[in-house]
Amino acid sequence: MKKITVMGGGTGTFVTLSGLKQYPIDLGVIVNMMDSGGSTGRLRVQLGVLPPGDIRQCFVALSEAPELWRKLFLYRFENGDLEGHNFGNIFLSALEKVSENYDEVLKTVGYVLKTKGSVLPVTYEKTQLCAEYESGVVVQGEGNIDENISEKSRIKKAFLEPSVSANKNAVDRILESDMIVIGPGDLYTSIIPLLLVDGIAEALKKTHAKLVYVVNLMTKSGQTNGYNVSDHVNDLERYIGRKLDYILVHNGKIESSIVKWYVSHHEQQVNDDIGSDSRVIRLGLADNTIVTAHKSDALARSILRHDSKKLADALVNLIDTL
Amino acid sequence: MKKITVMGGGTGTFVTLSGLKQYPIDLGVIVNMMDSGGSTGRLRVQLGVLPPGDIRQCFVALSEAPELWRKLFLYRFENGDLEGHNFGNIFLSALEKVSENYDEVLKTVGYVLKTKGSVLPVTYEKTQLCAEYESGVVVQGEGNIDENISEKSRIKKAFLEPSVSANKNAVDRILESDMIVIGPGDLYTSIIPLLLVDGIAEALKKTHAKLVYVVNLMTKSGQTNGYNVSDHVNDLERYIGRKLDYILVHNGKIESSIVKWYVSHHEQQVNDDIGSDSRVIRLGLADNTIVTAHKSDALARSILRHDSKKLADALVNLIDTL
Repeated sequence: MKKITVMGGGTGTFVTLSGLKQYPIDLGVIVNMMDSGGSTGRLRVQLGVLPPGDIRQCFVALSEAPELWRKLFLYRFENGDLEGHNFGNIFLSALEKVSENYDEVLKTVGYVLKTKGSVLPVTYEKTQLCAEYESGVVVQGEGNIDENISEKSRIKKAFLEPSVSANKNAVDRILESDMIVIGPGDLYTSIIPLLLVDGIAEALKKTHAKLVYVVNLMTKSGQTNGYNVSDHVNDLERYIGRKLDYILVHNGKIESSIVKWYVSHHEQQVNDDIGSDSRVIRLGLADNTIVTAHKSDALARSILRHDSKKLADALVNLIDTL
Repeated sequence: MKKITVMGGGTGTFVTLSGLKQYPIDLGVIVNMMDSGGSTGRLRVQLGVLPPGDIRQCFVALSEAPELWRKLFLYRFENGDLEGHNFGNIFLSALEKVSENYDEVLKTVGYVLKTKGSVLPVTYEKTQLCAEYESGVVVQGEGNIDENISEKSRIKKAFLEPSVSANKNAVDRILESDMIVIGPGDLYTSIIPLLLVDGIAEALKKTHAKLVYVVNLMTKSGQTNGYNVSDHVNDLERYIGRKLDYILVHNGKIESSIVKWYVSHHEQQVNDDIGSDSRVIRLGLADNTIVTAHKSDALARSILRHDSKKLADALVNLIDTL
């Protein structure tokens, strides 16, 4: 059975995992542990727990439990003391408090949610993502970088404070995989943080797995303003220290009302400037359904998403040719 | 298999169920749904859910899941937005929000905690407990009555506002039981509220089950000040409208340091004034272990408890003679 490992943590990873789990493959995900915004950020500070948000989304994406359990883990309280907190985040936080170690947490959540595949935190150590912009400004905290949307200069350097070591199981998984899927996801807050963990880039350089990058559909304000496909690829390769093997680029239509929404947020479709590079695979990958953002919706952060079936089909077709 | 049904909701019920679950009996509990204090009270008001606290304690008491799950459901957050909230209460509240109905909630919690026996809310309708004192004062809300410890006059009348109907399954359970165990528990905030639900006292009058009352060890300020055993029995029989069949009274020693703690809270050992009543069974039933109250301890509300094994032994021995 072919071994595919997804790297990420946010909405894009949720979509990718939801699609891939339908196929008979050995599926795993290496999860970003730098989230510091919203409910996750508050729980980190107030309870001293590891960030639960991305872990929770991955578990739900891979869950084969009845729909009720998936709804429960995505439920967000709308009133009172618990307002804005996600139940799944609270579950993971309380479980961390009563468990012997984080492996026990993962095992217990996997059991409850009947998870198909491996969910591997990229690290078990606590750290904060930092970004130094070309303007000289340094912002600390993934949540703050994510919200720093008025920043016009590019990110010169992303780093972790303090530096942390990779989860050994994540490193082993990278070395044993046939394919590593990077993205889609916010380049500097979901993808690159994984590569900053000591041991991850090294493993990606060493592995025989094919590295597949799924390029985002839209730019992100304050993070990838005006980025073309080549900018995404160049930044990513710089942090990995190795060339990507395949680059998946959406080449179909995007619903004009969706594009309009993004333009009003100073964001636009990522321009495909990469030309006839033999590594590029161009396909219609976008889900043009208009997503109405809702507080309790796990996917509220982006209104345009990859289509989970089209993306999974493309990845599985690709691995079959290897 | 003999059918025993416990009625209550607080610490005393937790102790009784923990003991009885070790025996091969058909065990059930009819749970008070009037709690309005602490974490439960805040969740009721802020989220509009049914009170989760007593339900949660009963599920944990009857759980045969690994210790981790029991610890998780009793875990109380000590910091931040979630401070003072119990994880089990949050679990029940979120589950109620995403479930079709409350039966689905009960089924799901029972599945997770691998519950032995039936947990039956006395009602599925929302209501508040009210107490009218001989002084003329009326206090609304179980939590407020519980905290009204400076009240010196007796409770003249307890009632529910609004009146609510019994859960049909609870009524059926009463009618089919061989023994109904009432108490131990706070007379006016844990026990009598159950009897105020339309249909419960009627079922208790009609059933062929033996009614066994486990008398509290200590009085409770503002609720049973100066109550002897006969006062407890008289008040209880007045609300049921039927004579009790057996009355279990502790007759052993109570550790003097524990008595001292209660005296400093204007509470004392319940005086056994009931004489040679043939319904009375006198046994050493107290657990003289000194319990250190701790915020995250499910049993923090009373430092003296019945011994769960001694109490269960007494009840099972009694049912064997019927």
